[in-house]
Amino acid sequence: MSHPTPTPAPSDADTRTRLLEVAGELFAEQGYRAATVRELCTRAGANGAAVHYHFGDKATLYRAVVEHAFRVAVTRFPPDLGVRPGASAEERLEAFVRSFLLRLLSDGVPAWLGKIMAREMIEPTDALEHIIGNTARPLFERLTGIVRELAGPDASVEHVMRCSQSVVGQCLFYRHCREMIRRGWPESEPTIEGLDELARHITRFSLAGIRAPRAGGRA
Amino acid sequence: MSHPTPTPAPSDADTRTRLLEVAGELFAEQGYRAATVRELCTRAGANGAAVHYHFGDKATLYRAVVEHAFRVAVTRFPPDLGVRPGASAEERLEAFVRSFLLRLLSDGVPAWLGKIMAREMIEPTDALEHIIGNTARPLFERLTGIVRELAGPDASVEHVMRCSQSVVGQCLFYRHCREMIRRGWPESEPTIEGLDELARHITRFSLAGIRAPRAGGRA
Repeated sequence: MSHPTPTPAPSDADTRTRLLEVAGELFAEQGYRAATVRELCTRAGANGAAVHYHFGDKATLYRAVVEHAFRVAVTRFPPDLGVRPGASAEERLEAFVRSFLLRLLSDGVPAWLGKIMAREMIEPTDALEHIIGNTARPLFERLTGIVRELAGPDASVEHVMRCSQSVVGQCLFYRHCREMIRRGWPESEPTIEGLDELARHITRFSLAGIRAPRAGGRA
Repeated sequence: MSHPTPTPAPSDADTRTRLLEVAGELFAEQGYRAATVRELCTRAGANGAAVHYHFGDKATLYRAVVEHAFRVAVTRFPPDLGVRPGASAEERLEAFVRSFLLRLLSDGVPAWLGKIMAREMIEPTDALEHIIGNTARPLFERLTGIVRELAGPDASVEHVMRCSQSVVGQCLFYRHCREMIRRGWPESEPTIEGLDELARHITRFSLAGIRAPRAGGRA
């Protein structure tokens, strides 16, 4: 006797992930304030009860969306990507920069995460504190640890902070200004194949900057 | 015989400037697409005929708003701010960085310009090509000229481009990530009084990066 295989009902986990993905696109497109749970339900073919069951209210859903995207990004491209045990501070800096560029520019990360973060920079929501505590601060502290090691024992806290910000700023530039680079300087838009070379440039530039003599003030 | 002083009617130029300022705030707050001429008229206490008389349609108004803001910014803080004739490339780099930070962070520039530019980075409009041609490209070419001089005759076009992007990225970071710095690392948020010191850090860091040996590839 043969039975036709029944179409499996979507599991709770499937529904949750699908809602996160659709909500991510919606928030990126319309912004946190303008996006509605109603529109999410229409797009995801779900009902309000499912959203409420999985996430509670819109604020909690939004936080879950951002957490989900960062988890995907950092799991896929961890800041010590490809670093062997006992690697030097120079190698760890290059891995940090390279994985950061990959998180910012690779297709392996939800494309809407960059837009959501850009919106947070214009109109921060309550989720920003959460993003700082859960993601930005741990990553930045890893970077300042590497920079401190490279700068040596005489470097001030301020010097280590400013040098670390100089590293981050160089990486973020290619995400933040992507549309401007694409239109105005397309030959310099980094391709995924060219990311290693870009990571080497930023690492070399930064190593020299971190180690530049500071005595005497003006360069 | 004495006459009461009549309240002067606003001149055409006054009306135009006022419309530009109110429209700048409106576009920053709502975005180009969502903002309406009707809302502008309500806020500015003007009528649609005045907007049409001065600017034509919404797209032309928007372009005029952005041009106005950049003109104010670059006139107030030109890229050669405080540079004496015959200044060295190092001095010109520091002036470039310092004036860039002032345009990004000073109260002397319409506060809404940064928000409008951040929105352009998420959802570019037709005005972006215009911004590139009129403002971004001339400024960036001045920077690449300075970097080329510092990097020396053997530097490749690619090296000069990447180093110039490294300079720009370091400056933009403090505007782009302002809300995150303010919440997560408030002690490192640059004050106007601290801008000279920040400009010196970025200049010194970048001079070392531009001059770092490139032979052999990896740092």
